[in-house]
Amino acid sequence: MSIADDNKPRSSGRAGGRQARKELRAAPLSDDIKPIRGGMTGGRYKPLTDADVLKIHNAALQCLEEIGFGQAIPTCIEACEKLGCTYGSDGRLRFPRALVEDVVAKAARNFTLFGQDPRHDLEPSGKRVYYATAGAAVHIVNLKTRNYDLSTLKDLYDAGRIVDAMDNIHLFQRCMVARDMEDPRDLDVNTMYASVSATTKHVGTSMVMPEHVTECLEILHAIAGSEEKWRARPFVSQSNCFVVPPMKFAEDASRCLETAVYGGMPMLLLSAGQAGATAPAAIAGAVVQAVAEVLAGLVYVNALVPGHPCIFGTWPFVSDLRSGAMSGGSGEQALLTAACAQMAHFYDLPGGSAAGMADSKEPDVQAGYEKGITTVMAGLAGLNIVYESAGMHASLLGFSLESLIIDNDILGQSLRCVRGIEVNDETLSVETIREVCIGGPGHYLGHRQTLALMQRDYVYPVIGNRLSPKEWAEVGKPNILDVAVRKKEDLLSAYFPKHIPEAVDDAIRARHNICLPKEAMGRGRS
Amino acid sequence: MSIADDNKPRSSGRAGGRQARKELRAAPLSDDIKPIRGGMTGGRYKPLTDADVLKIHNAALQCLEEIGFGQAIPTCIEACEKLGCTYGSDGRLRFPRALVEDVVAKAARNFTLFGQDPRHDLEPSGKRVYYATAGAAVHIVNLKTRNYDLSTLKDLYDAGRIVDAMDNIHLFQRCMVARDMEDPRDLDVNTMYASVSATTKHVGTSMVMPEHVTECLEILHAIAGSEEKWRARPFVSQSNCFVVPPMKFAEDASRCLETAVYGGMPMLLLSAGQAGATAPAAIAGAVVQAVAEVLAGLVYVNALVPGHPCIFGTWPFVSDLRSGAMSGGSGEQALLTAACAQMAHFYDLPGGSAAGMADSKEPDVQAGYEKGITTVMAGLAGLNIVYESAGMHASLLGFSLESLIIDNDILGQSLRCVRGIEVNDETLSVETIREVCIGGPGHYLGHRQTLALMQRDYVYPVIGNRLSPKEWAEVGKPNILDVAVRKKEDLLSAYFPKHIPEAVDDAIRARHNICLPKEAMGRGRS
Repeated sequence: MSIADDNKPRSSGRAGGRQARKELRAAPLSDDIKPIRGGMTGGRYKPLTDADVLKIHNAALQCLEEIGFGQAIPTCIEACEKLGCTYGSDGRLRFPRALVEDVVAKAARNFTLFGQDPRHDLEPSGKRVYYATAGAAVHIVNLKTRNYDLSTLKDLYDAGRIVDAMDNIHLFQRCMVARDMEDPRDLDVNTMYASVSATTKHVGTSMVMPEHVTECLEILHAIAGSEEKWRARPFVSQSNCFVVPPMKFAEDASRCLETAVYGGMPMLLLSAGQAGATAPAAIAGAVVQAVAEVLAGLVYVNALVPGHPCIFGTWPFVSDLRSGAMSGGSGEQALLTAACAQMAHFYDLPGGSAAGMADSKEPDVQAGYEKGITTVMAGLAGLNIVYESAGMHASLLGFSLESLIIDNDILGQSLRCVRGIEVNDETLSVETIREVCIGGPGHYLGHRQTLALMQRDYVYPVIGNRLSPKEWAEVGKPNILDVAVRKKEDLLSAYFPKHIPEAVDDAIRARHNICLPKEAMGRGRS
Repeated sequence: MSIADDNKPRSSGRAGGRQARKELRAAPLSDDIKPIRGGMTGGRYKPLTDADVLKIHNAALQCLEEIGFGQAIPTCIEACEKLGCTYGSDGRLRFPRALVEDVVAKAARNFTLFGQDPRHDLEPSGKRVYYATAGAAVHIVNLKTRNYDLSTLKDLYDAGRIVDAMDNIHLFQRCMVARDMEDPRDLDVNTMYASVSATTKHVGTSMVMPEHVTECLEILHAIAGSEEKWRARPFVSQSNCFVVPPMKFAEDASRCLETAVYGGMPMLLLSAGQAGATAPAAIAGAVVQAVAEVLAGLVYVNALVPGHPCIFGTWPFVSDLRSGAMSGGSGEQALLTAACAQMAHFYDLPGGSAAGMADSKEPDVQAGYEKGITTVMAGLAGLNIVYESAGMHASLLGFSLESLIIDNDILGQSLRCVRGIEVNDETLSVETIREVCIGGPGHYLGHRQTLALMQRDYVYPVIGNRLSPKEWAEVGKPNILDVAVRKKEDLLSAYFPKHIPEAVDDAIRARHNICLPKEAMGRGRS
């Protein structure tokens, strides 16, 4: 059976009984009849040969063994030395090859990333593909004024609500910095709380100080019902930039990593070098460095808690070498990300990298092709979690709520491509062709195969427009941006996820400085 | 050596001597320093497994042997029967499996598609990738009014001039119908003459009656200098829809095919079924039918003139099954086209299929992602000629001159992805990383590797905008469509290719009804 056959809509036979049917009806749309879903298997695109993969692996191990990492904090040095690392007189922590390979062999794999709603649980293993938001945009794009306004906590909450309603965005990672939060602690705590209040999908976020992690964990225990329940289904992962590329640990991030790991929070081990600036300009070299860096993080985490769930977050970015500024929408970026997917497959670890980062400042034709090319290539490469894949503009500086809705269509087409082509006796269609051509109507319009595949095999854009020019003119030549604005306004005025019970929300507000007013969350004043 | 290494900029050593250097300086930009060029090798994306490819091949042969083709004209039946086909009492021409395999084995491969300027010669073999226009749009998109106006001969000529100036569009196939030409003969002759006057790149066009082919050949002999010179370097191919899917010959097109083949004109054997309408709705089935149909055309041509150059033009389109209308921008289309690339590789024949056909009516975010996803997947699949890849809107009904310029950037990024990732000791960058990290500056900004790769490895958009939001605001928030309009106007007001000498042009005008005024071609009144 080919990958594509494995990607076919699931048989409805998998869950029987009255309860299963009841659950099925409660869900917005059953996976069974959807042509696409999160977690379909990609991997039919391989930018690297097997030999290339091995060369990159060996070069990364060489870097770890010979160059090592600067700026390790004492607890990191202590834990890693116990495993066999050496701390040199030059202040660099070095990782022997055999140790790294041993850690890779024993590291957590095939784990679930939980949603608050089990319907949104993710299984980022093999070559399964999920699309996610991410990022730290400092602006929200105002489509009407074309201004880059400061992003707020409310914007972040709204982004989460939209993601909750978008079929083709499977994980909500913090995508904007709430610039109305002045205190860093308020920022971290409220970013997380706004996110987990907005969606039942898995949430990713980051914290800058370990005491913020501790406070966030307290809130998560309250939402889960207890620490034990949180640890059984941790539904928030920490996006952690433990490395300052090239090859140095970030000290505060290291401390946050330790607190999160001990607290049972899955870890996105994030190396975000920029080729030509903080990583080699050669694409292969940027991948080597990213792999080396994330492997170091993997050793670090496993030295603290063996088998702790980590996402292999090789996120090399690209510089526009004319200016030194980042270029997220380039072909070079698409290649880097796809190559990273292959490296994660080599290690059989859940891989997360970035795609969909338009350089364009607004959702225009440039943003469209930048996002389309990069997200489809990440998916075809079988990247497990494609971060940054919705809403992003201006090389990660701006975020657009309308683009979330537009990008949901882009990701739908990307997922259709990931699903691939089923080849079997039925789809080869020899008998269908025979029936139509010999004594048949000479076309396939009303053929039972056509009708059967209409919903099961074909993906239709939600806001994309496929009318003919004549029909399009008759309905007033709708502009896709206007359609997205309207859809956003409709959604945000009516859609308020209420999965966190009011009493729990009240209890959290009583203990923590929650800055998003209850009214903004569609709750009445208590 | 990996494919990617093979795609590296060519060494400047390949052409020595004074004449070569002189030619080099005369060229606008040397291939040697370009990070991308036409004819780079793709193929790292394979939507089909090897077993899938074989199943499709076998199903296609079964269709040809058992179902066969209706509506063959007498000369076709006669030629094909001589080769071993059978003409049944049901009026269908059937192609025995062994015969088809024999024709495939002996068919022309590894031939050159010539440009009027040898600099633009194409080698559509292996997994080399070229991007081309094509189509028969009946409207030109007016970006200012958002109207779909009737397309004219002048529009077609202008499109050709723009293509001549665009680095990433390698072949100019007729893309619009000149609706100001009322007589079909005037239409065919003028379409070809406007195209070959506008560009020195290889031209594709079609003719509806054999006497039009004859007249076009006369003109081509005049441009080439003689029939012999034309036959030595035929720089126009005929795009021929010899099949009315499913599985019937088109009679007039068959006659045009015969005249063109005898006249030494390379043939694009075009099967343009539409999945769910004139081809099976199942993607695999649509590929099966397209392969069967083009194989029939290949037998037909080789029965007339063994070894005549043909492009394997499997162009299955997609229906939006909600309306039955075509959807060129869909994920299903991207898969169909990529699968066709693989089938052409299986036969080791030059493959041409379609990508870049936006459903969107204008160059907006939807057009961007539709074009980006489909053109990059065609390239990664190693499709030899990616037709329809620039300018197209509204599922082939509309053409935009501005989009040609925008799409040139899309194709540039696609080509960057096709080029892939070079992995070798230099690019793995271990020593570069060591130099930077240990005693080095801690960044790569001024490193010699970075500077060396800036022009050689990185592709910069021509009109795409990578400014930061601040810089973008400072320069007045340019809109990409305005930029494209300005670029188009600048180009069309100044760029008039004059490769056809005035005397030849005059001679052609004296013998043929050339409707494009000399002034429109930048020539003074004679």
